Amino acid sequence: MNADMVQKIERPLDLLNASKGKEVLVQLKGDKQYVGTLMAFDIHINIVLDNAKEVADGNVKKNIGLTFLRGDTIIFISPASTNLK
Amino acid sequence: MNADMVQKIERPLDLLNASKGKEVLVQLKGDKQYVGTLMAFDIHINIVLDNAKEVADGNVKKNIGLTFLRGDTIIFISPASTNLK
Amino acid sequence: MNADMVQKIERPLDLLNASKGKEVLVQLKGDKQYVGTLMAFDIHINIVLDNAKEVADGNVKKNIGLTFLRGDTIIFISPASTNLK
Amino acid sequence: MNADMVQKIERPLDLLNASKGKEVLVQLKGDKQYVGTLMAFDIHINIVLDNAKEVADGNVKKNIGLTFLRGDTIIFISPASTNLK
Amino acid sequence: MNADMVQKIERPLDLLNASKGKEVLVQLKGDKQYVGTLMAFDIHINIVLDNAKEVADGNVKKNIGLTFLRGDTIIFISPASTNLK
Amino acid sequence: MNADMVQKIERPLDLLNASKGKEVLVQLKGDKQYVGTLMAFDIHINIVLDNAKEVADGNVKKNIGLTFLRGDTIIFISPASTNLK
Amino acid sequence: MNADMVQKIERPLDLLNASKGKEVLVQLKGDKQYVGTLMAFDIHINIVLDNAKEVADGNVKKNIGLTFLRGDTIIFISPASTNLK
Repeated sequence: MNADMVQKIERPLDLLNASKGKEVLVQLKGDKQYVGTLMAFDIHINIVLDNAKEVADGNVKKNIGLTFLRGDTIIFISPASTNLK
Repeated sequence: MNADMVQKIERPLDLLNASKGKEVLVQLKGDKQYVGTLMAFDIHINIVLDNAKEVADGNVKKNIGLTFLRGDTIIFISPASTNLK
Repeated sequence: MNADMVQKIERPLDLLNASKGKEVLVQLKGDKQYVGTLMAFDIHINIVLDNAKEVADGNVKKNIGLTFLRGDTIIFISPASTNLK
Repeated sequence: MNADMVQKIERPLDLLNASKGKEVLVQLKGDKQYVGTLMAFDIHINIVLDNAKEVADGNVKKNIGLTFLRGDTIIFISPASTNLK
Repeated sequence: MNADMVQKIERPLDLLNASKGKEVLVQLKGDKQYVGTLMAFDIHINIVLDNAKEVADGNVKKNIGLTFLRGDTIIFISPASTNLK
Repeated sequence: MNADMVQKIERPLDLLNASKGKEVLVQLKGDKQYVGTLMAFDIHINIVLDNAKEVADGNVKKNIGLTFLRGDTIIFISPASTNLK
Repeated sequence: MNADMVQKIERPLDLLNASKGKEVLVQLKGDKQYVGTLMAFDIHINIVLDNAKEVADGNVKKNIGLTFLRGDTIIFISPASTNLK
């Protein structure tokens, strides 16, 4: 995501919208992390990830595939590319 | 679920709708997992599973049968076929 | 509950409605289980059980009798017959 | 509460209404139990008990007297007579 | 509070209203107890206590003075006189 | 805050309003305490403190400065002067 | 943020608004801390941070980059400059 796009984020959901179709890192309560392609989200921050994988310390622990995640358990959602800077 | 269907997911509940009548894996808070056929869901993510089974590490621990699960305790719902890829 | 009835479940509360007057197994947060006859429920999943019993590993631990259970603490509600299949 | 009254419970709050002026057993989250006379309740399941007593294993631990209990911490409310069957 | 007043409690908040200006015992989640004079409350059960004191086993642990308590953390509120019966 | 002002507290938020611009003690869930000057609050009990300090047993542990605190984690807010009586 | 700006904070969200484009310290439940540039927030206190870093005891533990944080897990948000006074 380039600097120009970052400047266009006026509301938090704008970032989720700009991240659709891209890989994101999702941190859940209870220290679990998932990476996957963000397919959809709603105002409750319920999301759908494609090719979701549970990860720990940068390693894949489990393949979950296509999955629906309830917003209630999510701490943060981060476009994965920004994690590799 | 083929790639074509995945592209049609615009809102998170679309995935649950597309999973009706199919086997899903349901992860609850407190590390319990259930598999069963998704019969129904609502906007609170309350769901009904048929032939529900509690599973742990891929093994069946208990048969629950037809069951109503409150959305409040659900972390994720994943169409089971995608877990076998 | 026969296969025909299961097919008619379109919304999660349909299962609770079809279970009125029947024995159900209720799993609460914190690992407590109750069995009893489902007398009533509302949209908050508050329920009334008649002849409620706390059970553990299939044994009756305590008779609670007629009781009101707040939906907030419920994980799942399962028609008991389906557990005996 | 006789069988005839039990049959008239159509909604969960009907049981609380039928229990007004009677002794009830109230189970809270965190394993505390109170008995007392149910004086009032509202849709949040906030209740007022008169002559409330904290009990454990059938013994009175503390007299609380007249008290307001927030619904949020309540697991179940059971007319006490049904516990003595 | 005499028996006549107790009979007039129709809704739970009636007890809080009747307790204004009187000493109350407030039990919080996490086992803390406060006593103080109930000055005000709202429908969220947010309250103001004057001369609030944290107590444990009947002893004063700390003087808090005038304080605003969020309803969310409250388990019960009991007019103190009823505790001395 | 003198006795006259205390008598004018009719609703819980009146105390927060009367405490604007004054030092308050804020108790959070999980046993953390902050002192600071109350600058603003809303109906969710979100607050802004100026010159906020984390304190423990009457000692300053950390300077936080100007800060926004979410109401959700707050147990009580107490005008500091009343603690020194 | 100078004293003049602090005086203009009438509602808690005014501080978040005045902090847009500036570095903030975000304290989460479960003792995690993040620093980053506040890009956006909404009334649920969902926020977007740019160049987010997980920090502990003043040291950077992990680079998270651009990230969406759910308000539900946030304890406080503090403009970082005020922490350096």
